[in-house]
Amino acid sequence: MKGVILSLNPNARIVDITHEIRPQDIAAGAFTLLAAYTAFPAGTVHVVVVDPGVGSSRRPLLLLADEQLFVGPDNGIFSYVIDRESQAAVLHPGAVQPRVLHLTNEEYFRQPVSGTFHGRDLFAPVACALVNGVKPETLGSEINDPVRLRPLTVENRQKDKMRALVLHIDRFGNCVTNLTKDDLTQEMIDGGVRLKIKGKTVKKFRRCFADETDDGATLFAIWGSAGFLEIAATNQSAAQLLRARRGDAILVLS
Amino acid sequence: MKGVILSLNPNARIVDITHEIRPQDIAAGAFTLLAAYTAFPAGTVHVVVVDPGVGSSRRPLLLLADEQLFVGPDNGIFSYVIDRESQAAVLHPGAVQPRVLHLTNEEYFRQPVSGTFHGRDLFAPVACALVNGVKPETLGSEINDPVRLRPLTVENRQKDKMRALVLHIDRFGNCVTNLTKDDLTQEMIDGGVRLKIKGKTVKKFRRCFADETDDGATLFAIWGSAGFLEIAATNQSAAQLLRARRGDAILVLS
Amino acid sequence: MKGVILSLNPNARIVDITHEIRPQDIAAGAFTLLAAYTAFPAGTVHVVVVDPGVGSSRRPLLLLADEQLFVGPDNGIFSYVIDRESQAAVLHPGAVQPRVLHLTNEEYFRQPVSGTFHGRDLFAPVACALVNGVKPETLGSEINDPVRLRPLTVENRQKDKMRALVLHIDRFGNCVTNLTKDDLTQEMIDGGVRLKIKGKTVKKFRRCFADETDDGATLFAIWGSAGFLEIAATNQSAAQLLRARRGDAILVLS
Repeated sequence: MKGVILSLNPNARIVDITHEIRPQDIAAGAFTLLAAYTAFPAGTVHVVVVDPGVGSSRRPLLLLADEQLFVGPDNGIFSYVIDRESQAAVLHPGAVQPRVLHLTNEEYFRQPVSGTFHGRDLFAPVACALVNGVKPETLGSEINDPVRLRPLTVENRQKDKMRALVLHIDRFGNCVTNLTKDDLTQEMIDGGVRLKIKGKTVKKFRRCFADETDDGATLFAIWGSAGFLEIAATNQSAAQLLRARRGDAILVLS
Repeated sequence: MKGVILSLNPNARIVDITHEIRPQDIAAGAFTLLAAYTAFPAGTVHVVVVDPGVGSSRRPLLLLADEQLFVGPDNGIFSYVIDRESQAAVLHPGAVQPRVLHLTNEEYFRQPVSGTFHGRDLFAPVACALVNGVKPETLGSEINDPVRLRPLTVENRQKDKMRALVLHIDRFGNCVTNLTKDDLTQEMIDGGVRLKIKGKTVKKFRRCFADETDDGATLFAIWGSAGFLEIAATNQSAAQLLRARRGDAILVLS
Repeated sequence: MKGVILSLNPNARIVDITHEIRPQDIAAGAFTLLAAYTAFPAGTVHVVVVDPGVGSSRRPLLLLADEQLFVGPDNGIFSYVIDRESQAAVLHPGAVQPRVLHLTNEEYFRQPVSGTFHGRDLFAPVACALVNGVKPETLGSEINDPVRLRPLTVENRQKDKMRALVLHIDRFGNCVTNLTKDDLTQEMIDGGVRLKIKGKTVKKFRRCFADETDDGATLFAIWGSAGFLEIAATNQSAAQLLRARRGDAILVLS
């Protein structure tokens, strides 16, 4: 993919976000993208290739959101970015809703397009065409039914009893929940909300991973860098301690 | 190595192909290079350091092929690129045969040259010298006996019974064979060639990894992105299912 | 972090040294930095984020050494660079002692600064400010008590019996000791010093990893690329053979 990009634009700046998504793990790719994209400048083109459906009828997509561009397969990989940007557009009425295009214009594909590596043959060259100034509108038509994962947002939101879930487990073993500050009242945050997960109750909130308060807690809740509440353990893997997996239910009690 | 390159040319564009070759796994390095190099533009200098013989009498080499340059140790790492480019030169009489030089001119080495890290002390600085315009011919003399791995090509090619092998196992567990489209008749491809491997017979061909046809096959054959036939399994590791390893024999039956 | 840097300076050249330090493994990060930094050109800014104490009272630091700049947490990650550069400054009286600044000027921090990812919110933007020409002196005040790991140098240095230790285990399983050429007499090197480790005695010295001399040794000593004596095994992991771990004692006998 890098060779294709540099062949089309020797001055393209390429940075790697990660190559450590496990095979076929679309949700992990979607979360990693969510955690990274807001830090990138306007005009960045993200090439996202977690693509078990490569070569099948799954559509190749271009997402326009946050003044950035994202190319990749229609398998849910953009789901969380779309969730967040759609929410942002609702909250800030002047803001632009994310738009999704189905990439049908083959003019910029690398021929012959293989059935097994669209990262190289389709997404990388289209990304480079966009960097080179090709207008998104010329690449395909807008669609409104991209594949979506389970929504980011907490579903049964009630004042004193909320059902959340484990959205992602990071390389440190932290269990990232789908709870944001918008889901909790200031009182809940200050008063020590309780999280029930896998038969254990997490009561402590910490501001940082290192235990400065010596509160004796093995497990604690902490606001993670992507804006979600995480369940963590000091210098240990909370996921291992809890035998937690992505999708596990969390009961939030005030 | 990156520090050495940037010290010699602050404008050099460095991209990583992989740092995930297992220690001493020359054949995996050779395959990875084979799968990647054709996408890079003319003039690219590849620095390839899978080098268990570093510091011994194994020669440092420069390979000139496909209008690109490759620096690395004489241990077979360039074997597959040489195979493919030699074949291409035979098929296209105007094309240029690959040339291999023994890097003997120490002028561009980083002194003192250690016995344990020629990537940093020899290959990276020579690569940067080439980027900076130094002529290959000034760096050493041509040789015709670089170390070669087992040839890429299928050895006993017969019409109805061919012996192939597992050339590589990729990170998804796909078993890449050494069979290319040139080895099979159109009839064989259309009629469903059978591959016997590790006591099992693979009969299905698929165009993509995802099972759209619902053919019920666990294992199937598929044309991989490097141009070889692969034995794969939907969202599973075919290598694990088959307990297959690199070098395993495959009997190809029409 | 890369997004933050490119947002502040689209022309910044970013290279990855490694993303394979195990969680919380400060000593491995410190060694990796030690092994890499000398190859980089003057003016390079290293961003080093192995940071289990993120968000706590641990200080953010800027190290100025070897005409390069290093930003990261005050947890010992810079310990070995400081050790080496302090020694160098003693040996070469004209040379400049390394200086450490406590980063207190929040002007260049990314707001709001999270409690969990100072790599993104503090170290990357400060690094970019330095690349953009901001003077180090404006970022904080000099300190003289950065956290230090166990010193690099061999402690009980005696002529015929020295106590060294395993400083690092690399990805090949080589056991990097803290012995440098300065610790051994030429006689010791030539005459075959013996290293006692984990009940075994390593007697052979080799110049390269591949066994050209056919000396029959499974384990041998070799000068590694970072300037330290290493205990290695041909195409095997010496650490696994010895069940060695970082910190293990080595008795050096002449």
